[in-house]
Amino acid sequence: MKKVSSLSELGFADDIHRTLFRPIQQAAPPSPTQRRTKISVIGAGNVGMAIAQTILTQDLTDELALVDAKPDKLQGEMLDLQHAAAFLPRTRILASPDYAVTANSDICIITAGARQIPGETRLNLLQRNLALFKEIVPPLARYSPGTLLLVVSNPVDVLTYIAWKLSGFPPNRVIGTGTNLDSSRFRFLLADHLEVNAQDVQAYMVGEHGDSSVALWSSMSVGGVPILSQLTNDKAVVEQGVLEKIRKAVVESAYEVIRLKGYTSWAIGYSAANLARSLLRDQHRIHPVSLLAKGFYGIPDDREVFLSLPAQLGRSGVLSVANIHLTDEEAARLRRSANTLWELQQKLDL
Amino acid sequence: MKKVSSLSELGFADDIHRTLFRPIQQAAPPSPTQRRTKISVIGAGNVGMAIAQTILTQDLTDELALVDAKPDKLQGEMLDLQHAAAFLPRTRILASPDYAVTANSDICIITAGARQIPGETRLNLLQRNLALFKEIVPPLARYSPGTLLLVVSNPVDVLTYIAWKLSGFPPNRVIGTGTNLDSSRFRFLLADHLEVNAQDVQAYMVGEHGDSSVALWSSMSVGGVPILSQLTNDKAVVEQGVLEKIRKAVVESAYEVIRLKGYTSWAIGYSAANLARSLLRDQHRIHPVSLLAKGFYGIPDDREVFLSLPAQLGRSGVLSVANIHLTDEEAARLRRSANTLWELQQKLDL
Amino acid sequence: MKKVSSLSELGFADDIHRTLFRPIQQAAPPSPTQRRTKISVIGAGNVGMAIAQTILTQDLTDELALVDAKPDKLQGEMLDLQHAAAFLPRTRILASPDYAVTANSDICIITAGARQIPGETRLNLLQRNLALFKEIVPPLARYSPGTLLLVVSNPVDVLTYIAWKLSGFPPNRVIGTGTNLDSSRFRFLLADHLEVNAQDVQAYMVGEHGDSSVALWSSMSVGGVPILSQLTNDKAVVEQGVLEKIRKAVVESAYEVIRLKGYTSWAIGYSAANLARSLLRDQHRIHPVSLLAKGFYGIPDDREVFLSLPAQLGRSGVLSVANIHLTDEEAARLRRSANTLWELQQKLDL
Amino acid sequence: MKKVSSLSELGFADDIHRTLFRPIQQAAPPSPTQRRTKISVIGAGNVGMAIAQTILTQDLTDELALVDAKPDKLQGEMLDLQHAAAFLPRTRILASPDYAVTANSDICIITAGARQIPGETRLNLLQRNLALFKEIVPPLARYSPGTLLLVVSNPVDVLTYIAWKLSGFPPNRVIGTGTNLDSSRFRFLLADHLEVNAQDVQAYMVGEHGDSSVALWSSMSVGGVPILSQLTNDKAVVEQGVLEKIRKAVVESAYEVIRLKGYTSWAIGYSAANLARSLLRDQHRIHPVSLLAKGFYGIPDDREVFLSLPAQLGRSGVLSVANIHLTDEEAARLRRSANTLWELQQKLDL
Repeated sequence: MKKVSSLSELGFADDIHRTLFRPIQQAAPPSPTQRRTKISVIGAGNVGMAIAQTILTQDLTDELALVDAKPDKLQGEMLDLQHAAAFLPRTRILASPDYAVTANSDICIITAGARQIPGETRLNLLQRNLALFKEIVPPLARYSPGTLLLVVSNPVDVLTYIAWKLSGFPPNRVIGTGTNLDSSRFRFLLADHLEVNAQDVQAYMVGEHGDSSVALWSSMSVGGVPILSQLTNDKAVVEQGVLEKIRKAVVESAYEVIRLKGYTSWAIGYSAANLARSLLRDQHRIHPVSLLAKGFYGIPDDREVFLSLPAQLGRSGVLSVANIHLTDEEAARLRRSANTLWELQQKLDL
Repeated sequence: MKKVSSLSELGFADDIHRTLFRPIQQAAPPSPTQRRTKISVIGAGNVGMAIAQTILTQDLTDELALVDAKPDKLQGEMLDLQHAAAFLPRTRILASPDYAVTANSDICIITAGARQIPGETRLNLLQRNLALFKEIVPPLARYSPGTLLLVVSNPVDVLTYIAWKLSGFPPNRVIGTGTNLDSSRFRFLLADHLEVNAQDVQAYMVGEHGDSSVALWSSMSVGGVPILSQLTNDKAVVEQGVLEKIRKAVVESAYEVIRLKGYTSWAIGYSAANLARSLLRDQHRIHPVSLLAKGFYGIPDDREVFLSLPAQLGRSGVLSVANIHLTDEEAARLRRSANTLWELQQKLDL
Repeated sequence: MKKVSSLSELGFADDIHRTLFRPIQQAAPPSPTQRRTKISVIGAGNVGMAIAQTILTQDLTDELALVDAKPDKLQGEMLDLQHAAAFLPRTRILASPDYAVTANSDICIITAGARQIPGETRLNLLQRNLALFKEIVPPLARYSPGTLLLVVSNPVDVLTYIAWKLSGFPPNRVIGTGTNLDSSRFRFLLADHLEVNAQDVQAYMVGEHGDSSVALWSSMSVGGVPILSQLTNDKAVVEQGVLEKIRKAVVESAYEVIRLKGYTSWAIGYSAANLARSLLRDQHRIHPVSLLAKGFYGIPDDREVFLSLPAQLGRSGVLSVANIHLTDEEAARLRRSANTLWELQQKLDL
Repeated sequence: MKKVSSLSELGFADDIHRTLFRPIQQAAPPSPTQRRTKISVIGAGNVGMAIAQTILTQDLTDELALVDAKPDKLQGEMLDLQHAAAFLPRTRILASPDYAVTANSDICIITAGARQIPGETRLNLLQRNLALFKEIVPPLARYSPGTLLLVVSNPVDVLTYIAWKLSGFPPNRVIGTGTNLDSSRFRFLLADHLEVNAQDVQAYMVGEHGDSSVALWSSMSVGGVPILSQLTNDKAVVEQGVLEKIRKAVVESAYEVIRLKGYTSWAIGYSAANLARSLLRDQHRIHPVSLLAKGFYGIPDDREVFLSLPAQLGRSGVLSVANIHLTDEEAARLRRSANTLWELQQKLDL
């Protein structure tokens, strides 16, 4: 993207670099093995920019590329980040409506998505998002054939499936943020109530992102101490109805933020940056993310759907899925979500 | 601020903490000397939230309080930050329209400000901002008598003066972000042109924030190498007109971002967080910030104005001002700005 | 401590600061409420210096004070840290054999200890350590009456008890590193075997630091997935004998490092810095540390002993103890350790 | 290196991973373009371990390999770092006396060196170091043909030249730490005297590391304010003799640390980690490091010597050299060092 006010145009001599610096003799050009890391963010809206800015603050990558269809907004966001250069380690920040700017990315994070038109059916919205992804995913895959794809756009589970199909990538390289943020909200609510650090609360939401997500009560623990069994031991029984209310409160809390401030941005920004870190830095950490779920918990092998399960993430994407114990009812709910998604996907013109 | 969906209301037993945790015997309550650090941000708009989120990501403080007049927006922003708890070190995040929430702050960052109504005079806008600051500054000073005040709202130099007067604080504890961000923009433009790290470019904008700011060409250096004298030695003379164009490009770049994306947020967020760090962590670093400038460069002692000069910042605010060499013309420009500001201030009903 | 080569002595004018910097007018002196954070490390041996250097690298505190009886070694270590100033955020580094240097600390970390003389009884060694602590703890408590005490020296449980008694502090402000490092070793061994991130392994060693420590198998989990019950479900039964071998391997691994490199330093440095962070930054995280254990798991109220239990740590020290489930045998082992320690303590001349 | 106490040997089932985790279907193996970053440190003495531990704390790399001729010491150091796994982001830590462990490094840091035998000539010591480097450099170059080499061992300028010759690498990929640490010591002494942050002091030592290094007074500045000219303006003239005393104090301060604590470790650890960061993360920052200096400041093109000059460092090593102004005397001193080194190098059996 053309910079409006480059110093060259203002008459600042181009050869000043040569005046201030000289190469050493016999220097060789950079070799292709001397790679820099690169993350691209597609979509410069509230979510995309919260992700990009968090990645920049946390110094996760050497190069950050932004893509958006609106060139003015895009250039404004790029300049606003670049202007902070004196306060941050150096990250090369690029922006363009042209996907060529994403070439050789390690991770491409897709936040672009169509907004629901009042009265529009869910299927119609999805068809429009499919059309959008057909413009986004193939060029990303072409310019960065080895990249990981991290899908943030909603409905995340179907769109991650679509991104997988359009990319032609092996499924371990296509991941949706899924219930990673729902799980953080869950952990925050518990941590706030118990006055502990949320990083000491182990608690997962899995399954379909949104209203049908499943809270895994049985594996919930605080600092390694299982909560429910502890409460049962101590006669402080928690009723099933209360647990379901808490699950709904977690689901509801996203809508609450949207109702109060108009959109969500910060928390999804931290969630995506957190996943990007585990992937790029090969952390082998376990996160609940949307992944190809066929074959797990009785989902038939011909049901190619993406659902969130706790998975180990590393430099090559999904390394493996944690073999958690689900109750029969929880597993049944997962399969129902799988069926719903599968039927929806059949109606798409992929 | 009342939490909409607390677990207690959902029927999750309040005594669960007592079931899961027990105090040790003979424990004493926290002593007042065991202080936690606290930063308050006044105004939850784009600028205030970019500052708050950057402070949170950089883990600068133990407690973060947000104040805004709009309770819904405020609670939405608070929840959006809190939901990221699992991805960050623990910071206690509070929000309320009531200034009591800021009690015992170490730094209060003021971003609130009235927006210009089309056709409104500069003086009228300032009068409205004065009225706003009369509601903000006295309660901040009352709830945190030892706090530092960091003013971000524009016009920053006059509003920092107003905050000083309204607070009754010694002037070293009242600081405006001033040209700290202009200087980073200046350094970015030079660094980008020279392909160096902006942290290796020493270059200041000083004086009045905005159109009349002064670029200090003579002290500009790259990695400790003075640029202009070097260029002169090497016959790559840079004309005075070019330098003035670059200064204007720096000033213009803020307007450019506003024109392109509608407002500025990220860079001012990093700038304020950068200053907060130097202050709270007693870094003794040098930043160009707006401070009580009377007595410097021939500004008379009865001219109580705030202008940006490179100052050393630490735990007690402005520690000292760097004694930089200004050309006669640069010093004259500073004094002109001082006069303009002084005359404007005389018209205020303080 | 006198600096050997200060610039003043070399003839560099003392008034250069006044030439380069000037205060603003009407500035007020720092107020006592504008506190800087301070950590003191007692003992500049391998362990003390690994702790001090890790705290410095992690930028945990504004001021770092070192105390050791050997002034040359101490000054050498101080200079070696100070010489890195250009590579680190600013931390004020002080060192002196005089405890006055520790005044107003937030945390004092005690690493000093007598070494076993060949043929010396455990009791005799302890008596010598008691004599040493009588020189260390009272001045620390006098110079920093509100400080937290973190004891690293071995035998850590008895010496933490001694520090508590000598300080006169409430017990929540006196903590031993205890089994915090043993637990990290335990988590590393499991994580390495399972190819997961050790931060996703929840597993505690509790009780007496050293040979009699207790591994809490029942609460062990990976990414929130309980391991042992999972293995049992899947018929991959782990025999009890194997678990005891693993516990012994954890205990043994400290001796192994000592045998191989002569001492341990890095891991204990990270462990103590990790605890210091949770304490100073009020993280409310759960760590297994040595604390006043009477009243827990049937330890009688008159048994004033310190043993490691998973505790929530914050700005006022031990906030609470997690109510973990122990098997009867595990609880019995804790009580045996309590008795052993209690009897030993009776023989001390406190 | 064989692990002494692996869980497999203790009877912990190897298939536990398979019980706890399952791969997703159709997953593809990691592709070679999905690289992890890797730093190798040669020599596990005080200097090598301070470097390795600082790199680990600062989370600079995904994989860290240690090589040393003493297998016990090496394994002890590796275990001591690994035991901290629960306190740090995941870094894969490897150690072996076999250079195969360094394969595919991005940076290899050489700290190994022969110690002077009492009475030994400087040339004889150098011959022994040459013999050592003949065992080290060729296997490093073979296992990591694209790596950068960072030489820390002393005499650093000659040994960097030797590493360059033995590697067959282009000279931009072979760098000595040179006067990077001397410059930090210089900046600390000035910052401490002026009560400013050392990161705001621009001041270089260049030339030969050690007694003949050159302090660049003319480019010295504080926060961008040139010091010497400022002092001259203000009549606070600093005498030439004083400046030379300060230079000697900087050189002396390394010996002082050695005299006091027996060796230097922390500051060189931070210095090398600082350089590794600029290189690996492509920071384009300017550091005074030892590089192929022929052609600079009148050093003839046939004098293939390495001397420290302020250079911009990035992912491909030395990007360029800053064109600083030297006085005639300073340039002459550089050329004298070049001659001395050249003559010494002629006597080597390379």
